[in-house]
Amino acid sequence: MTERMLVKGNEAVGWGAVNAGVDAFFGYPITPQNEVIEWFARELPQRGKVFVQTQSENGAIMMVYGGAAAGFRVMTSTAGPGWSLMQEGMSHLAAADIPCVIVITQRGGPGQGSIRHAQMDYNNVTRGGGAGGYKTIVLAPNSVQEIHDFMQLAFHLADKYANPVIVLSDGILGLILEAVELKPIQFEPLPEKTWAVKGRDRHPEKMARRFVHCSPASGKFREGFYHYGAWLEHMDKRIRQMAEAEIRYQTYQADEADLIIVAFGYVSRVCTEAVNRARAEGLKVGLLRPITLWPLASAAIREQAEMGRKILVVEDNLGQMVDDVRCAVEGKTEVHFLGMLSRHLPTDGGMILPGRVMEEIRRIL
Amino acid sequence: MTERMLVKGNEAVGWGAVNAGVDAFFGYPITPQNEVIEWFARELPQRGKVFVQTQSENGAIMMVYGGAAAGFRVMTSTAGPGWSLMQEGMSHLAAADIPCVIVITQRGGPGQGSIRHAQMDYNNVTRGGGAGGYKTIVLAPNSVQEIHDFMQLAFHLADKYANPVIVLSDGILGLILEAVELKPIQFEPLPEKTWAVKGRDRHPEKMARRFVHCSPASGKFREGFYHYGAWLEHMDKRIRQMAEAEIRYQTYQADEADLIIVAFGYVSRVCTEAVNRARAEGLKVGLLRPITLWPLASAAIREQAEMGRKILVVEDNLGQMVDDVRCAVEGKTEVHFLGMLSRHLPTDGGMILPGRVMEEIRRIL
Amino acid sequence: MTERMLVKGNEAVGWGAVNAGVDAFFGYPITPQNEVIEWFARELPQRGKVFVQTQSENGAIMMVYGGAAAGFRVMTSTAGPGWSLMQEGMSHLAAADIPCVIVITQRGGPGQGSIRHAQMDYNNVTRGGGAGGYKTIVLAPNSVQEIHDFMQLAFHLADKYANPVIVLSDGILGLILEAVELKPIQFEPLPEKTWAVKGRDRHPEKMARRFVHCSPASGKFREGFYHYGAWLEHMDKRIRQMAEAEIRYQTYQADEADLIIVAFGYVSRVCTEAVNRARAEGLKVGLLRPITLWPLASAAIREQAEMGRKILVVEDNLGQMVDDVRCAVEGKTEVHFLGMLSRHLPTDGGMILPGRVMEEIRRIL
Amino acid sequence: MTERMLVKGNEAVGWGAVNAGVDAFFGYPITPQNEVIEWFARELPQRGKVFVQTQSENGAIMMVYGGAAAGFRVMTSTAGPGWSLMQEGMSHLAAADIPCVIVITQRGGPGQGSIRHAQMDYNNVTRGGGAGGYKTIVLAPNSVQEIHDFMQLAFHLADKYANPVIVLSDGILGLILEAVELKPIQFEPLPEKTWAVKGRDRHPEKMARRFVHCSPASGKFREGFYHYGAWLEHMDKRIRQMAEAEIRYQTYQADEADLIIVAFGYVSRVCTEAVNRARAEGLKVGLLRPITLWPLASAAIREQAEMGRKILVVEDNLGQMVDDVRCAVEGKTEVHFLGMLSRHLPTDGGMILPGRVMEEIRRIL
Repeated sequence: MTERMLVKGNEAVGWGAVNAGVDAFFGYPITPQNEVIEWFARELPQRGKVFVQTQSENGAIMMVYGGAAAGFRVMTSTAGPGWSLMQEGMSHLAAADIPCVIVITQRGGPGQGSIRHAQMDYNNVTRGGGAGGYKTIVLAPNSVQEIHDFMQLAFHLADKYANPVIVLSDGILGLILEAVELKPIQFEPLPEKTWAVKGRDRHPEKMARRFVHCSPASGKFREGFYHYGAWLEHMDKRIRQMAEAEIRYQTYQADEADLIIVAFGYVSRVCTEAVNRARAEGLKVGLLRPITLWPLASAAIREQAEMGRKILVVEDNLGQMVDDVRCAVEGKTEVHFLGMLSRHLPTDGGMILPGRVMEEIRRIL
Repeated sequence: MTERMLVKGNEAVGWGAVNAGVDAFFGYPITPQNEVIEWFARELPQRGKVFVQTQSENGAIMMVYGGAAAGFRVMTSTAGPGWSLMQEGMSHLAAADIPCVIVITQRGGPGQGSIRHAQMDYNNVTRGGGAGGYKTIVLAPNSVQEIHDFMQLAFHLADKYANPVIVLSDGILGLILEAVELKPIQFEPLPEKTWAVKGRDRHPEKMARRFVHCSPASGKFREGFYHYGAWLEHMDKRIRQMAEAEIRYQTYQADEADLIIVAFGYVSRVCTEAVNRARAEGLKVGLLRPITLWPLASAAIREQAEMGRKILVVEDNLGQMVDDVRCAVEGKTEVHFLGMLSRHLPTDGGMILPGRVMEEIRRIL
Repeated sequence: MTERMLVKGNEAVGWGAVNAGVDAFFGYPITPQNEVIEWFARELPQRGKVFVQTQSENGAIMMVYGGAAAGFRVMTSTAGPGWSLMQEGMSHLAAADIPCVIVITQRGGPGQGSIRHAQMDYNNVTRGGGAGGYKTIVLAPNSVQEIHDFMQLAFHLADKYANPVIVLSDGILGLILEAVELKPIQFEPLPEKTWAVKGRDRHPEKMARRFVHCSPASGKFREGFYHYGAWLEHMDKRIRQMAEAEIRYQTYQADEADLIIVAFGYVSRVCTEAVNRARAEGLKVGLLRPITLWPLASAAIREQAEMGRKILVVEDNLGQMVDDVRCAVEGKTEVHFLGMLSRHLPTDGGMILPGRVMEEIRRIL
Repeated sequence: MTERMLVKGNEAVGWGAVNAGVDAFFGYPITPQNEVIEWFARELPQRGKVFVQTQSENGAIMMVYGGAAAGFRVMTSTAGPGWSLMQEGMSHLAAADIPCVIVITQRGGPGQGSIRHAQMDYNNVTRGGGAGGYKTIVLAPNSVQEIHDFMQLAFHLADKYANPVIVLSDGILGLILEAVELKPIQFEPLPEKTWAVKGRDRHPEKMARRFVHCSPASGKFREGFYHYGAWLEHMDKRIRQMAEAEIRYQTYQADEADLIIVAFGYVSRVCTEAVNRARAEGLKVGLLRPITLWPLASAAIREQAEMGRKILVVEDNLGQMVDDVRCAVEGKTEVHFLGMLSRHLPTDGGMILPGRVMEEIRRIL
């Protein structure tokens, strides 16, 4: 018999991290993820783990760097404006092969924007807001259970590829309460972090990585051009490995369909309900839900297009993933978009609701 | 008779800005664009204009915000790592409709990376490294003359759309010397910046924008949901206007061709030479050179594909624009990529040279 | 015929600085000296001079360092809480023999305290809030005219001794309006600043000072113990020179007196009125007003004590200068104190007024 | 039977703090106190306590503020240059009645100065480097045992007076090894910290203090002038209480003496040896060693003067405490000074040694 608990999405971040064996959390408060930082502030010290509320988001990501370079499982959490302040550190982490987990609870608009829910960080998490063309796996849960489970998966994948991993939540998922089974997930065993910098150990590989923490111009990349090339080669290889092995997605009612909705995060829950209503009306509608936003299930989306199905992308933004979906289908079918313009906005507070998706389905079919 | 002067790319940034009537420069030193900041430090005060070396890149973009909000033509300049530190400010600028110009002289790799040339910031300048899905026009010069001219165009477009504009240079363009005609360009007249915040003026529109400088949750967007929607509508409309009106590209030897090379920046110069060599050998090769990286000339690229021509994308990175080119061609032709992996790297210091492009052309044809 | 203008104390800082040939102002807003920074923001650019509102007080003092090290006349202005943030820079400036002027417009209490007037920074300006035992001349004006004149004197003394100089104003002096004669003062000529760091000049003395800007452990102080001793010797000698040559004070009605009031700044104005009232009542009261708080006129104060006169120190604080006065009199007379405790506070808003001083005079005599 | 351990001075800071029940340490590395921060980094987490290496000294003192405001025993440690950066926070702490302990391991000179030992922070710790005239008790140990014991006393006195307390070490004491008895000291019981801000408790007194953490203009001091007066009254009363009750000093061989040496810290150890040598030569020399630098044992020093004894102040600086000693003796005897000028410096590395003190004794007697 499994134990289930009523948990808020933002708190499931904490439960998942603890079940992944998180050692430390470094962060700075920002709406709509303040329950995340509050949870860690309260729970980590009780478990003998480290919690630090840093002086800024910039400081948070740099402390993540330090802790992770020492081989610990460390993480931070923020929303869009704070995420902007973490781009320098993120770029350093990716450059230096440092595994860590970043949770982003999206809110609306650029700048300080709005504190309401949104899915407006798709572009910057899938393309890298920092410099230099690194890539990070992005996991997009659509339930509190998945937030919990994906936190564990995120730590596993971060360690597996020695690369930061992002868990992309939003202002809806973070605040809803759902019954969650809180248990540790067993993943394949991973090699020991022999590279981890600890104490006064002067092992050459550790020293190299130690220097990388200061500057990739040092250590094994020091002597110039050849090493720069080797570094690019190494980075390119890792990006390809992740792109090939880590694509995750789900389909629902997709076996026989005239229209496939593509949606992620909380919006995919809304669209599931819309699919149910459409099917009840005899409309052949299915759902393809990307779980990893990078790497994206482009081939699976293209297959849907090749089967002649129309596609409707639904996002709580002005259109971000839809560009990648259009790219994936290579002109083989129509791609429609339902987003978050005021002309679309319902009167119920700004969520895209099943009824609104149904309208769009009827309009297309 | 026109006057021509031998000018370094990084200095052409300064001459162009002055010819655009720049009022102030705020920046922090970073290789390979230090000549930019040195030029402004020396030249602006002599012209009664403002130069400030700020405490950090974060400070630079925030001072840009302040100066631009007061209606002045202001700018900053940096390289990838500094650009990461500007993402918060950039996101605020885009949210508040503040025109300004940012010059990025690209260098290699994420993190501190390498100080050598690269084209590794394509993704973050075309997708927005900051939060919320804004867009900025990105101009990619391929000569010192264009750096000079595009600085003027950038200030014009920034004011026209009330949006930041990026001029994307690199460590090659910034350091080469070329003869440049230094003269002001006449653009269509623009409306007065009546919104500019100055002194104690309390005009409602200015007040709104004044508050936006603190928080888009204030001012006209204050009362909640409806205003958030209006803001998105406004942002969406502006993005569409820019995307429709501002696509710029060039073709070379593209009339009869079996293969079209797509390249930007200094690499497009290298590829022009490769096209010449290929044509001399009887190989039907042309060039399509995007000048605006966002909005990208996707339709023009697709047309090439529809004419049955193969495409070769050449970039000084691990593959960034190539994704957008693949997207544009919608599977209608082969898309090849020549980038900056060590297995591709020549022995001459890391530039992609015409001979290397020729090898690839021969391999494809 | 001299021109006189009605000027606010905080603005007289600006007029005085301009008459001293100030080249640049770096500062950050804080009450009750915001008119100072506003004046420079408005007036300096019009005169082709540099004004920068920095990111913080820490940044302001560091930019002062940079500008002054290049041989320019530069300054900043702040109140107590900002002054706390300048202690690191102040300590570096004193260590590296860099002349500059700092204006402190005092407000009440430690921490953020109160924004009302006070004289609560006497201790930290006379003893050095930063590390290492440096000393700075402190000029305490008691009129708007003196603020204007002392700014010029401050720049002269800073250059003369290659040492920072403080002008100590307060929330009363800064905000009152008085008729001021605004004209440049001629001081003795000073040697050229051959040590100033400019451009690419590599003169050894300049290099030494250039390095000192980074670290006094470098440059001529580099090789260790001997140089440290030479540095101390140099610092000690300068402190003695200033202490001997720069003591300034005024007396009023002090020829025949039973009681001498010692007071500085705005309080000395209040006490002048009290002296007048006392004399009108036949009470033999005089005033000794320190103009330099460091070096303090201790010998002159002791002389008063030796003549058998009682002493009353009046300060808008809990007692700071009174300790130095007690020290000066060496137990040779009674020293009374009237300060700013609530049991003393009048009902008129918190200033020490002549009537309150009269009460104390009557109580003592 | 007591257990004794060979402990370095900087590490005794840690043992003493732990025996005082320290809950958290926040600090930033700086020579010559790096063993302090290393000790806490290693030892605190093992004891379930909090250690954070902050982003800067400014951050350290602000985290001290937060932790202490919540009622925990927290501390930081630094040297002169870092201490300069803590003046803002220190001033806030004193303004808000927040108990905490700051350890300063002095090094030489202002600015970055030298990393060698010194006693150059006497002035800024006894007068307050921050704004507004607060006072803090300063304990000056002269042995590793005393460092250990005074850490405990410091936490006790901080809690007793709700005021920061400074333990003033130096680069000699921090690095010497001595046998120390490591045991907790029992002090008088103190009242519970009912004012401590914890969780969501909304007790009025706590709320007041909670607001004070932001601004003393809020909370109970909110409504203006009257409250400002009450605040000053409160601060003045506390300063008087500490000044009356907490003076500590030691004498050695002072019963019959012609000359009394006044010295603190490591220099008092040197002078003890000089006293021994002098007595062996028949010279009547004693020692008065201040343990608290504020409040200083002025009355005890004056008594020595009144007995007709000459005084010699020895300090590892250019003369700081000597000013207060001169003040204390009120001209009743000669006050000589032996400090750290190069003309005094011995050839053995810069310490003032017993032989040098003996020379001075012979010169005076």
